[in-house]
Amino acid sequence: MFDVIRHLSFYSILEEHVRSYPGKIAHACSGQTRTYEQLLERVDRLINALEDNGVQAGDRILWLGQNSDRILELLIAASQLDAMLCPANWRQSKAEIAELIDDLEPKVVFWQEEEVGGDIRAGRELAKFTGGLWLQHDGDGDDSYDSFLDSGRPDRNDHREVDTTAGTLIIYTAAFDGRPNGAVLNQQTILLQNLVLAPTQRISNETVFLAVGPLFHLGTLMQCLTVYHVGGTNVFVRRSDARSIAKAIHDHKCTRTWLVSKTMDEIIQLNHDRHYDLSSLRSVPYNEEWNRMVTVEPVETHVPGYGQTEVMGLGVLPQYGRHAIGIFGRPSPLCHMRIVDEEDRDVESGQVGEIVFRGPTVMNGYWRRPELNAHRHRNGWHHTNDLGRREADGSLTFIGPKVQMIKSGVENIYPAEVEACIRRHPAVADCGIIGVPHPQWIQTVKAIVVLKPESQASAQDIIEHCRQHIASYKKPSLVEFREDMPRTATGGIDYKLLDELYGGGNYPGGNTRTS
Amino acid sequence: MFDVIRHLSFYSILEEHVRSYPGKIAHACSGQTRTYEQLLERVDRLINALEDNGVQAGDRILWLGQNSDRILELLIAASQLDAMLCPANWRQSKAEIAELIDDLEPKVVFWQEEEVGGDIRAGRELAKFTGGLWLQHDGDGDDSYDSFLDSGRPDRNDHREVDTTAGTLIIYTAAFDGRPNGAVLNQQTILLQNLVLAPTQRISNETVFLAVGPLFHLGTLMQCLTVYHVGGTNVFVRRSDARSIAKAIHDHKCTRTWLVSKTMDEIIQLNHDRHYDLSSLRSVPYNEEWNRMVTVEPVETHVPGYGQTEVMGLGVLPQYGRHAIGIFGRPSPLCHMRIVDEEDRDVESGQVGEIVFRGPTVMNGYWRRPELNAHRHRNGWHHTNDLGRREADGSLTFIGPKVQMIKSGVENIYPAEVEACIRRHPAVADCGIIGVPHPQWIQTVKAIVVLKPESQASAQDIIEHCRQHIASYKKPSLVEFREDMPRTATGGIDYKLLDELYGGGNYPGGNTRTS
Repeated sequence: MFDVIRHLSFYSILEEHVRSYPGKIAHACSGQTRTYEQLLERVDRLINALEDNGVQAGDRILWLGQNSDRILELLIAASQLDAMLCPANWRQSKAEIAELIDDLEPKVVFWQEEEVGGDIRAGRELAKFTGGLWLQHDGDGDDSYDSFLDSGRPDRNDHREVDTTAGTLIIYTAAFDGRPNGAVLNQQTILLQNLVLAPTQRISNETVFLAVGPLFHLGTLMQCLTVYHVGGTNVFVRRSDARSIAKAIHDHKCTRTWLVSKTMDEIIQLNHDRHYDLSSLRSVPYNEEWNRMVTVEPVETHVPGYGQTEVMGLGVLPQYGRHAIGIFGRPSPLCHMRIVDEEDRDVESGQVGEIVFRGPTVMNGYWRRPELNAHRHRNGWHHTNDLGRREADGSLTFIGPKVQMIKSGVENIYPAEVEACIRRHPAVADCGIIGVPHPQWIQTVKAIVVLKPESQASAQDIIEHCRQHIASYKKPSLVEFREDMPRTATGGIDYKLLDELYGGGNYPGGNTRTS
Repeated sequence: MFDVIRHLSFYSILEEHVRSYPGKIAHACSGQTRTYEQLLERVDRLINALEDNGVQAGDRILWLGQNSDRILELLIAASQLDAMLCPANWRQSKAEIAELIDDLEPKVVFWQEEEVGGDIRAGRELAKFTGGLWLQHDGDGDDSYDSFLDSGRPDRNDHREVDTTAGTLIIYTAAFDGRPNGAVLNQQTILLQNLVLAPTQRISNETVFLAVGPLFHLGTLMQCLTVYHVGGTNVFVRRSDARSIAKAIHDHKCTRTWLVSKTMDEIIQLNHDRHYDLSSLRSVPYNEEWNRMVTVEPVETHVPGYGQTEVMGLGVLPQYGRHAIGIFGRPSPLCHMRIVDEEDRDVESGQVGEIVFRGPTVMNGYWRRPELNAHRHRNGWHHTNDLGRREADGSLTFIGPKVQMIKSGVENIYPAEVEACIRRHPAVADCGIIGVPHPQWIQTVKAIVVLKPESQASAQDIIEHCRQHIASYKKPSLVEFREDMPRTATGGIDYKLLDELYGGGNYPGGNTRTS
């Protein structure tokens, strides 16, 4: 039952921010800033435009573009209609984009021409689903984002009886079984998690957050959502190059962001003449040059904690385990955790088992995956597919994924997904994917390929085949051929042996492959 | 619908603490400590004993005693049955206790003989409601708390499908209309508010909190609940004398508490020989002597914020208004606030109006006050009965209660309640209550009395009459007689004139009486 007096939603928060923060900048993006008042006006028009175009409760809105403040605008608008926004990975291949479209069957698609338009248009061609209103968000014609927004009436939308437990955000992840799955998260989950993230990630209403990482992952998006909730300012850069980042920090006096060391090095190089004033940025110490440019903050901990998209980012935090044995910490006040064996029985403390969660931050489920959901949520607990150990003091040591993943920069690469792609090559009989250590990207992908009798394919053929069908960052950079695939007693690929023979290693959490 | 995988409750938190904090002390009280494991065992027995004695969803359990760890045990147990606990004011008169019993009609009453037994037994005699199981919690017979607890089976209670939006805590407050009203708060409200209180009140899992203030007010109880939620330790003292407090800090290395300056002075006096080691206590600076005994912490702000029991303690916090015009701050991430006129229209910023709230921390309503609830919750907003001003930057300046209150120490005294009592004296025709400044207690109560023709009563008679019928702290310490009661044009008592004539002043928030 809708309970207006106890209601809290993305939209009601925006209304409050208009009262609490008159004139304050909510968003800065592409040289434009918007106050909370302006944001509310835009969101109202968006809601009305979406509804006029048939968007109803449960419908999906797809964002196929790079970082933009529009993603947040759209999420707030979608949530007030009980509809869902999926900010999708624009680095995907046309084949993957087609699969995504068919999986989501979106009512509205906002897509971007610049840089990524080719694959998106090709993906749309490939898809079986031909419906949906397609709008080129960076265009300037009638199908542009702003034309669409302007078409909406300015009427307020505070009368809507919104269900904050209905899914409103879809983030694709966890392609353990060969295809990515869309984790459906609801408003209540996001709003509660914000209350845990604000103090632990040092986010307050004084924060000016620079969103650098891709918003199709929860890592950066969850920070933006927390900044929004507590009344801070979000700054978006579409391109995450050193100059755009330095300029954004300088222009908007950003106080927080997340940068990889490569980007920090580039900024140091670029800014040797102190052209950009970066002193507003609070940062963990890096090197001497960096420390002189920014405001260095004492490091409380270098461990971000443990979590996954399916539990709204973080479930276990080092802030609840200072001086604890397990450096990942203890469950947040919103999470209950057990470590279980294959039959869901608690393992002894000190023993490795699967990490399972319960609590209001657990996702509603994966979009259109009833069987997988039943499996992951069996016995009333969300099964993470990750291995961990509860130490004698109750704290967690995260061991690694139960099914081995490969880490390339910030991206997770699931061997099953790359293997499935390579097996579709007409010359390939079998394939095993491993990760080999890489000095800059943590790991790079290596394919071990068995060709069909009488068939021929070069390493370059295999790589090119992958480039055609999956996101470029997932394709192998190295391919080795062999006569047959080594298998374990139970019939699975013997990855341990492949790692030994072909230089595999540096897996996130160590080598934990169990299947 | 019960959603086990996203469930979070007092009970499920206790189960998690057993896993996350093995061996950790949850409670210390009267020389006894309990680990979280022991607390869970006790709570399970309590739940089963309460159920065996007929306690069902919606039933009330009444605590008529001083501070004790049992209040928290009982609250957790009650919540797992969807029942409610009311920790009641033991300083009330027998007549007030009788009214309370009749209002609550409790299924079980835990009462205390020591110090307060006389009035409680007399109140029970006076009450119309004669049901309920009465247990003397500090006894040692069959009706003692521990006998009752031991009578419960040890069976676990994790199978119960609890509704965390059902009321589970009743705190009496707001006797604006002459009698106190029981604000009903639910688990969800309390658990959400804990996430706001933990960072703003500097409570973490390392906190050892000493509960000094009475647990029948939310001020101290809400801190205990937050400490419990995040896995800290709560220490309880039944008597809040300087020696008990100093000994508890010394024995349990308490890190936080709330003390009034009078108590700090007494502790300084008592501990001049450094018999007690108080160095674990983090405290705001006081005087030189105090600062040497404790660990002085920089004061972030001296203003606790603005709130009331009906919104789970605090709704507006200075942490969301650093450098703001209104020193009380801005609404917490769980609260929406407006300032409205008598017709619920927004007043201009800078203008005084009634503070109204919306959000998940608003109470379910007052127990058995349908008309008052409809009035206080009219138009979808909780009306606080307090006056405030929204400044140009959106921050709040709290002005004071709409209906004048008197402040004596930590207690709120409602003139209407004292007036109603005095009017019941056979010799009294009319009465007006004002507060006059007091050097130690902020204010003291003064009665202006008009006697009936031909009737006689002394100041002492009036005071003695009040002592018989209302809590001692509410009785007037000063009584003045006059021929007639000055009235305003609209017929109300002219309190402004009474204040002028009889020395009234120092009201909380200034003089804001509107009725």
